[in-house]
Amino acid sequence: SSPAPSPAWPHTALSLRGHLFDTGLINQVLDVVEARGGAFAIGQCEVRPNREQGWQKEISTVLLEVEAPTQRELEEIVRRVRGLADLMEAAVATVTEMKPPSPPISVTSSTPPSSPSPSPSASQPQATVDSPRRVLVLGAGRVSGPAVDYLSRRHQVTVVGTSPEELTRLQARKGDPRPDGGSGGRMHQGLVLDVVGETEGVKKLVAGTDVVLSLLPASMHVDIARACLACRKPLVTTSYVSEALKDMDAAAAAQGLVFLNEVGLDPGMDHASAMRIIDRVKAEGGRVHSFRSVCGGLPAPGVAAKTPFLYKYSWSPRGVLTAAENPALYREGGREVKVPGEALLRHAVPCPPDAFPTLRLEVLPNRDSLKYQALYGIEDAETCFRGTLRYEGWGDLMAGCQALGLTARSPVPSTCTSITTYLRELWGEEDGDGWERGAGRRLAAAGVKNPGRVIRALAWLEGHGGDAMPATQPWADQTSVIDAFSTLLEERLQYGPSEVDMVAMRHDVVVSGGRRKPGTAEGKEEMGGKMHLYHHTSNLLIFGDEKDSAMSVTVGKTAGVATELVLAGTLQRDNVVGVRVPTIPAIYTPLLDGLAKEGIVFKEDCQAVAGRGEEDERERDSVFLE
Amino acid sequence: SSPAPSPAWPHTALSLRGHLFDTGLINQVLDVVEARGGAFAIGQCEVRPNREQGWQKEISTVLLEVEAPTQRELEEIVRRVRGLADLMEAAVATVTEMKPPSPPISVTSSTPPSSPSPSPSASQPQATVDSPRRVLVLGAGRVSGPAVDYLSRRHQVTVVGTSPEELTRLQARKGDPRPDGGSGGRMHQGLVLDVVGETEGVKKLVAGTDVVLSLLPASMHVDIARACLACRKPLVTTSYVSEALKDMDAAAAAQGLVFLNEVGLDPGMDHASAMRIIDRVKAEGGRVHSFRSVCGGLPAPGVAAKTPFLYKYSWSPRGVLTAAENPALYREGGREVKVPGEALLRHAVPCPPDAFPTLRLEVLPNRDSLKYQALYGIEDAETCFRGTLRYEGWGDLMAGCQALGLTARSPVPSTCTSITTYLRELWGEEDGDGWERGAGRRLAAAGVKNPGRVIRALAWLEGHGGDAMPATQPWADQTSVIDAFSTLLEERLQYGPSEVDMVAMRHDVVVSGGRRKPGTAEGKEEMGGKMHLYHHTSNLLIFGDEKDSAMSVTVGKTAGVATELVLAGTLQRDNVVGVRVPTIPAIYTPLLDGLAKEGIVFKEDCQAVAGRGEEDERERDSVFLE
Repeated sequence: SSPAPSPAWPHTALSLRGHLFDTGLINQVLDVVEARGGAFAIGQCEVRPNREQGWQKEISTVLLEVEAPTQRELEEIVRRVRGLADLMEAAVATVTEMKPPSPPISVTSSTPPSSPSPSPSASQPQATVDSPRRVLVLGAGRVSGPAVDYLSRRHQVTVVGTSPEELTRLQARKGDPRPDGGSGGRMHQGLVLDVVGETEGVKKLVAGTDVVLSLLPASMHVDIARACLACRKPLVTTSYVSEALKDMDAAAAAQGLVFLNEVGLDPGMDHASAMRIIDRVKAEGGRVHSFRSVCGGLPAPGVAAKTPFLYKYSWSPRGVLTAAENPALYREGGREVKVPGEALLRHAVPCPPDAFPTLRLEVLPNRDSLKYQALYGIEDAETCFRGTLRYEGWGDLMAGCQALGLTARSPVPSTCTSITTYLRELWGEEDGDGWERGAGRRLAAAGVKNPGRVIRALAWLEGHGGDAMPATQPWADQTSVIDAFSTLLEERLQYGPSEVDMVAMRHDVVVSGGRRKPGTAEGKEEMGGKMHLYHHTSNLLIFGDEKDSAMSVTVGKTAGVATELVLAGTLQRDNVVGVRVPTIPAIYTPLLDGLAKEGIVFKEDCQAVAGRGEEDERERDSVFLE
Repeated sequence: SSPAPSPAWPHTALSLRGHLFDTGLINQVLDVVEARGGAFAIGQCEVRPNREQGWQKEISTVLLEVEAPTQRELEEIVRRVRGLADLMEAAVATVTEMKPPSPPISVTSSTPPSSPSPSPSASQPQATVDSPRRVLVLGAGRVSGPAVDYLSRRHQVTVVGTSPEELTRLQARKGDPRPDGGSGGRMHQGLVLDVVGETEGVKKLVAGTDVVLSLLPASMHVDIARACLACRKPLVTTSYVSEALKDMDAAAAAQGLVFLNEVGLDPGMDHASAMRIIDRVKAEGGRVHSFRSVCGGLPAPGVAAKTPFLYKYSWSPRGVLTAAENPALYREGGREVKVPGEALLRHAVPCPPDAFPTLRLEVLPNRDSLKYQALYGIEDAETCFRGTLRYEGWGDLMAGCQALGLTARSPVPSTCTSITTYLRELWGEEDGDGWERGAGRRLAAAGVKNPGRVIRALAWLEGHGGDAMPATQPWADQTSVIDAFSTLLEERLQYGPSEVDMVAMRHDVVVSGGRRKPGTAEGKEEMGGKMHLYHHTSNLLIFGDEKDSAMSVTVGKTAGVATELVLAGTLQRDNVVGVRVPTIPAIYTPLLDGLAKEGIVFKEDCQAVAGRGEEDERERDSVFLE
């Protein structure tokens, strides 16, 4: 009954969330639009299934595109829709404006209507963040949810996404409960903008905020950092510091700005939690002999056990497959160990039970561990190892897939219509007896420990295992074998709606001295000629829930806490400026404290492992020790 | 403002559930009571926190005790309250009558108002349960929730509990979602009755139902079975069949009644899932050489890892401690193995990774496995083993607690005020240097593998580990050391609100013959003089959620499906009558099918392990094989 929206009229998009349908709110909203001569289109409509409370009212989210003959009428419609949502309490509704991509945005001139406080410039930082500030979050993906949740409790958050749908999805996600029962915990404003193409638009947005949190891909951070420099605004990212970004250190420092990077899980929480131990040990006069750190984002054990691959993919399997070919470098007992990329998977070793006693995990070396010796100031440690956690047997299984040629970059042979035809072409026998026997021989020759499991897993992958669906993507349409294999993995090993992930991190730090006699020179023999060794551990084990993955929570909350820290201005006050990562107490202490308040807690322990003394008798658990 | 309820007036109790407060329904209900001259008291009031949707309306449950001058006025009040709940749709409310304990109940004469169908007697069974029937559930504990959830979808369920509060708690629990959006999935009527003391009351209730499901302790089942015999009603229980119950077999059979027992998890699902494999193997002409079955109810891995004990208690720790002293008997490679009670914990062996590849578990022998050879018809199997699953290291840890005297039945010495003082008295040294060194020596002497972990766990238990609270129960007030230790375990190792449990079950059945040539004589050599061995496996891994524990779901749903099966009348029609357990296809097939529809699925697999043939090349995984 409404006229189709005309692009000539002023228009906007409203994200409505609440009991829209059962209370009739949505009908009254549409009445308002029509009564003011406007037009509407419903862009996206999500009715939450609300599985746990079947017969209760459902929370819906609707993206309503609205246009009106004049800007004034459009604003009046928006005002009235907001009023309706306020008045119809049974609807418990929120209305958020999602400015559409065209006409080009220009928000810097119009301060948001309820802008809670004047924003001091970055060169006049505040010590605390008692008053709300403006935060610009770039990116509206999975990680943005927990970050916006955290920041919008106290601040006015503007989110830039790639589409109104993406922003509405972000707004529609279940947020943390609000103690006041209010409609907080959500973004104040959503904007649709092509960050790459709209450099001027980004600059205007940056100029109008107090801090920028970029959750975009790392490659985009240099441009954003340039905008931050131009507008004199601090920047927070979860990515590794690139060389180009590092080059901006002096310029940022000269302006008294902090560009705080690597504040996610890994990199991020790994730096913070490791440096807390290392700095404490050093302050007590100790020396680090061995540093081992492992981290993994994995499906929860019950989810992983459902597939013979013991893994699920939340992003592209292609990245996981190629990462399994990265060479690694670490130090073990004073000796440098180089692991060529093609041998990486064969280097998986069981994770000792003391780290995660209920889980059966293994550890693969994670790229270049040596550079962490300089980063963490433990250059003289005899052992420095960083590893990736997987479920036990994963390395052997994936090594088997490699050995069978499934990660080849070569084109898919034109005769191959499926993984089975490909494997038969490579490993089948002349009597056409299937591929399993030849593949089994190949796997055994390649040193794969459990060839039967590889063959069963591949059969399952193509639906011969009984409980998998046939592939939907034709094998022959793929550009290369690894792409075809990735596509199949992606189809089969996605997280289902109630399947949750897990994040595990563990440090094992063996040190001498310290502890008992603060100030003793490091490495020195003490107390009757015996060297005292202590084994410090730090553990984190977080599970995802229906709302968020453990991965997006650990990355997003860390980014949120870091952004709050930058807003607080204490870093700038203490001259912690320029391009930074969370390896210093001024950053990691408030970061870890803030995360602990969110329930993300590293559990630390310390045991004596050699020498004499009352603690020393306790045990000689040699987890992760050489 | 209301007069205090007077016991002289007729009274009843109503459980109201819904948006009672925010819609104002509760006020209107109270108005009705007052307008009809009645009086009320609010017995229990629970406002669900609704953590996931903080600002949405809250679901409340109120137990409203109502009295009125006459029975007629009371009934009118109840009628009007029900009407109000129906009309105020925004409240999405349900009203359930919870008849209070006095005056003595007499429900047999009054057929429930909406009794949906005439109930055929047990001797005239129906083939299907298309029409709703009457189910009497005895017991309103944790297991009752999933059972009532399941049964009330189609039937009129009356629940007998020990208090109105217990019944209201059951009614208030989150039920499964209802596709029709209605208010089903709940009991029709709740009754408060002392089942032990009120034999006549129980008999009247039994007379007025179509089937009895008893979820009470096993010791009460003989009396209930007598009532069922007297009233000619079938009975379902989740308990082991006692000798006294077995003696009623002929009498029940003579009446054409089935008394179906052991329909929980263990016993229950273990029988059903094992016999499905064994019967299939036999039907194909195979012979069972080895039967191994393990089962465990444990905290989920992330929950268990939070404590050094790798365990949590949902019931009494005392029972777990004494069960760890049960002697065990099993057959291994033709040889009988006896494990004395005091050596049981030392017999824990790691659970092979193939069973639960992501979890680090161990297996302890579970009492008398030999009697299962007769029960399952595998008398000639060379191996028959049933085991209990724990996380790896649990047996060693608990053996350490035993070795330190913490499970002693002796009285707590009067000088002991805590576990530490007790341990110091037993293992401390003359210089008063603490108990750890002496205890460590004792543990090493007792053959405990990881003494350090025992000592750390005990220190944690009493709050010296940093993250435990001090004990609230004075050590000296306990009657014996094992009671004092149990109390401490119970305090420290309870499930927290968001902590979930896990149920794991696995069968490994190795058979010869069958598979390829059905009808071949068992044990006979076939196909070129080689014996074909096949390894059948069956896996179940279920996690609890916010709503229910995995344990109560697996027991309760199994009991519910079994009750539905009895109501269907197919068992009686096929003369499956008398005292029964789910070891025959007529019972286990519909039981496993019904559970599969509820998402509780045993995952079966079969691999050839010896001999020649296309499957045999696959692998020789020797999980659980001798």
